[in-house]
Amino acid sequence: MTRRDFIEKTGSASYLTMLGFGLIPEAKAEPLNLQRNKANKKIIILGAGLAGMSSAYELIKLGYELTILEARSRPGGRVWTVRGGTTETEIGGITQTCKFDKGLYYNGGAARIPHNHKLSLHYCREFNIPLEIFMNVNEGAYYYSEGTGKLSNKPVKIREIHADVRGYTNELLTKAIDKKALDEEVTKEDLEKLSAYLKEEGDLDIMKKYKGSERHGYKRQGGYGEQSPELASPHLLHDIVESGLFHPAFSNVGEYTFNQQPVMLQPVGGMDALPYAFAQRLEGKIQFQAEVQEIRKTSPGVKIVYKDKTGTVKEILGDYCICTIPLPVLKGITSDLSSDIRRAADFVPYMNTGKIGLQFKRRFWEEDDNIFGGISKTNMDITQIFYPSYNFMGKKGVLKGYYNFHDRALRLGNLSLAEREKVALEQGGKIHPQYKTEFESSFSLAWQKINYSKGGWAEYSESARKRFYPALIKPDDEIYLAGEHTSHLTAWMAGALESANSVVTQIHKRVNAA
Amino acid sequence: MTRRDFIEKTGSASYLTMLGFGLIPEAKAEPLNLQRNKANKKIIILGAGLAGMSSAYELIKLGYELTILEARSRPGGRVWTVRGGTTETEIGGITQTCKFDKGLYYNGGAARIPHNHKLSLHYCREFNIPLEIFMNVNEGAYYYSEGTGKLSNKPVKIREIHADVRGYTNELLTKAIDKKALDEEVTKEDLEKLSAYLKEEGDLDIMKKYKGSERHGYKRQGGYGEQSPELASPHLLHDIVESGLFHPAFSNVGEYTFNQQPVMLQPVGGMDALPYAFAQRLEGKIQFQAEVQEIRKTSPGVKIVYKDKTGTVKEILGDYCICTIPLPVLKGITSDLSSDIRRAADFVPYMNTGKIGLQFKRRFWEEDDNIFGGISKTNMDITQIFYPSYNFMGKKGVLKGYYNFHDRALRLGNLSLAEREKVALEQGGKIHPQYKTEFESSFSLAWQKINYSKGGWAEYSESARKRFYPALIKPDDEIYLAGEHTSHLTAWMAGALESANSVVTQIHKRVNAA
Ligand SMILES: Cc1cc2nc3c(=O)[nH]c(=O)nc-3n(C[C@H](O)[C@H](O)[C@H](O)COP(=O)(O)OP(=O)(O)OC[C@H]3O[C@@H](n4cnc5c(N)ncnc54)[C@H](O)[C@@H]3O)c2cc1C
Ligand SMILES: Cc1cc2nc3c(=O)[nH]c(=O)nc-3n(C[C@H](O)[C@H](O)[C@H](O)COP(=O)(O)OP(=O)(O)OC[C@H]3O[C@@H](n4cnc5c(N)ncnc54)[C@H](O)[C@@H]3O)c2cc1C
Repeated sequence: MTRRDFIEKTGSASYLTMLGFGLIPEAKAEPLNLQRNKANKKIIILGAGLAGMSSAYELIKLGYELTILEARSRPGGRVWTVRGGTTETEIGGITQTCKFDKGLYYNGGAARIPHNHKLSLHYCREFNIPLEIFMNVNEGAYYYSEGTGKLSNKPVKIREIHADVRGYTNELLTKAIDKKALDEEVTKEDLEKLSAYLKEEGDLDIMKKYKGSERHGYKRQGGYGEQSPELASPHLLHDIVESGLFHPAFSNVGEYTFNQQPVMLQPVGGMDALPYAFAQRLEGKIQFQAEVQEIRKTSPGVKIVYKDKTGTVKEILGDYCICTIPLPVLKGITSDLSSDIRRAADFVPYMNTGKIGLQFKRRFWEEDDNIFGGISKTNMDITQIFYPSYNFMGKKGVLKGYYNFHDRALRLGNLSLAEREKVALEQGGKIHPQYKTEFESSFSLAWQKINYSKGGWAEYSESARKRFYPALIKPDDEIYLAGEHTSHLTAWMAGALESANSVVTQIHKRVNAA
Repeated sequence: MTRRDFIEKTGSASYLTMLGFGLIPEAKAEPLNLQRNKANKKIIILGAGLAGMSSAYELIKLGYELTILEARSRPGGRVWTVRGGTTETEIGGITQTCKFDKGLYYNGGAARIPHNHKLSLHYCREFNIPLEIFMNVNEGAYYYSEGTGKLSNKPVKIREIHADVRGYTNELLTKAIDKKALDEEVTKEDLEKLSAYLKEEGDLDIMKKYKGSERHGYKRQGGYGEQSPELASPHLLHDIVESGLFHPAFSNVGEYTFNQQPVMLQPVGGMDALPYAFAQRLEGKIQFQAEVQEIRKTSPGVKIVYKDKTGTVKEILGDYCICTIPLPVLKGITSDLSSDIRRAADFVPYMNTGKIGLQFKRRFWEEDDNIFGGISKTNMDITQIFYPSYNFMGKKGVLKGYYNFHDRALRLGNLSLAEREKVALEQGGKIHPQYKTEFESSFSLAWQKINYSKGGWAEYSESARKRFYPALIKPDDEIYLAGEHTSHLTAWMAGALESANSVVTQIHKRVNAA
């Protein structure tokens, strides 16, 4: 067992032990474990999202004095649960108030915690936040491909496409092996074992043909007495191809990619349990409705100019500043920040992304379609429908009628509230005709139009990562940036939390070295 | 829309509507919806498992008089949740009492509800039993292959094998296409689209080679600041093959088969919520500790001889009888049943199956290994380890240290309790070294040795289904058999429930026709 093996096996290594071992570069994020501060330094934190609040939480443990300035009247930033009573006024002036019934909600920003995001889970554990499974994969949900081909323009159970494609591809590969097309690639012995495996994997028949499978589903399910099962016929490979079901819109992101593989988790009752748990421990430290307007260096130290909730412009001084303001917002703030940072704020692209929550009178997706959580996918603008992973079999329910990105999110975000709702109902209604009779109310978000966010998350191209990122992760005199955009885990809470842990460590080392 | 389409879409068809449409053979199970009984018939039901109790529940709605005789002192039969205080004496005399902490449990029999088992879900809804997700698939859990090869004799994350095998097979198929080995099988146009799809599906590089993937996991995960992600190297295809990871022990049953595809569900707090909900509605109708000893025909009618809890032998008369006693138990009961039924009872094979619950001081699988629910698989006797899908991040936890079948279950079942525990700890300890220090107590089940069950479930071969099954699903004068063994959904609660619905319908029709 190597030292790292040991640490990974026992899981008991603290951040400092690992620093000692020289393991930090390869190490997974671990909870902070630093010595208490002796100096009497004051830190000003800009933003009460996860990066800001977790910085504050750790700094307080170390004995620092601090203030958080937060423009909104709630903590959490992009971790935000939409419930009855939630109101929002978008950039451009569109205002809405959520009319969902009590107990129903959707997570407007962060919704799922990957099982391998250690810090996200660490804080949930530290705060005793009960977790439940976020079902990200559902073979019983639908693909809906708008286009040509026999399987398009109608909902098709995901299991059918998965089982059939697996069947055909495994049959084809078996055939290629039998034709000796792969003799140069793999040893004869391994090919034999591979062949046996492919038969299992594709559920091929004794002739190594795919003739359909119970995995695809039944024409008649087996039941009591004489009701013996009768398999449904498989779809033709050609129909699957022609119907566009090989399009990336239908690729298995949720099954395959590291950050979305099963298992995923969610806090019971809404993701905002996490920011509220931080906020509760930071009582009196957060000034809400305090909009930062200027970030100044006082060499050494910082001066922050902000507008408080009465509209009065105020100043606050500090020894250090942690700025977690998203770049598209930072861009508009007057500051003494380095030109490199300001250039990054100008040019790092952010994701357009939108969600709509739809409340229905009954959970027809469960009652009629046997869909419990998971995602239906489509090449229409709505992109996907997320079914709630809570309150199964309850009376009413809220599903996410769309969660989309890029141009589609921009297009829908530019519509009026009523038009967004209409698109969601029309397109979603093609998958679920029950939309028509069961719909009650909606609440939609276009993150690029949401004040104090102005986008979903930093979306680095390779070149943007090279050109702009390095400036963001270096202290600028006494100012440190934190937030998901200062991490390689953009678009995830874990990125925000890890950046905060890192910046706290950096500041603390500097203070103690002085 | 055809009539069946309509019914399936609206989901509102009753059993009788469907009977009317002549749709029963193809129809999915639907809740019963019959007219109340006018005649004054008395039904004797043998067994208070799901088949017996759901029969009773529906018959009472129809106005029948009835009594259930149940040998055990609890309802539910093979639906049984093991908790602190649970005691069991096996055939052969081994006795154990469960010492789990309050709030910890495992389901000793039925544990998971497939999303497409309508009747199981129907009764949960009818009784307002809260459901949560049973996580049946977890890419973060382990494969452990005992044998030779680089990847054997150590736990390997499932994601690594899945991602690499997918990568290699998609690369190979792509190669075969490029070599024109499949030109006779698929049109050129479809092959092109298939090729593009395979690149996505296998995460191949620009040269259509599999060189590893983030899906496999990281050597160094991306994090804050400069911690850029570094991919782990893929395993060699040869190592995967040689290490036995193509063995059926590691096949993707839980992802693929119809009855185990995501999503699966479980009642919050234990599967026995379902039988107890029935029992509560049958108060006064169930005689517990009433062991049936003789089943007699009184032509017409039945006489049942049983031993009550005081040891007194008693008789009870009825117009009809529904017998849900498992065949291996029925075999030992004196009866006037037809020789066909008695032959079936003698010869239909039942599954050997065992489970062991292991309580640990801490949830190291979650804390150290990031495993939240799901299954690790191995070719050792323990076969699989199930991680609990409830109480995530809690202090202690109970996992299933094995759930096995056939010879393996027989072998372990024949051991003493201490030896079973030892095997579970030794073999499981190879996957989780933490077993050694964290173990607290165990409770093991060998279903073939459990009184009044004597096996897991009816395991029909094709020939047994042909020879023996038909007799079991026909009334034998006034006696009707019900239970999972009288269905094509053996090994599932839905089979028991559907058989009961069917038998109730048959009796009711007969009574009303008379
Ligand atoms: C649609 C969507 C889906 C997502 N899904 C997931 C997911 O499933 N799982 C996951 O882990 N992550 C997800 N994320 C990402 C996650 O939400 C973010 O990475 C994380 O919340 C960012 O935290 P932060 O502290 O860096 O930024 P923020 O949360 O944006 O915090 C910044 C704070 O600064 C405040 N602020 C801004 N301007 C000013 C100003 N001028 N003065 C004062 N305060 C100001 C803001 O109000 C805000 O509170 C998702 C994000 C979005 C948008
Ligand atoms: C290990 C295991 C795992 C399973 N997993 C699942 C799963 O995940 N999901 C799922 O849906 N199903 C599962 N099943 C199957 C499910 O539990 C059964 O199909 C179902 O419970 C059978 O119900 P039943 O009423 O037919 O029989 P039983 O539940 O066996 O009921 C028969 C009743 O008759 C009583 N009885 C027996 N002899 C006498 C006598 N002489 N006198 C009086 N009463 C008597 C018994 O005590 C019992 O209560 C599993 C079963 C096992 C064993």
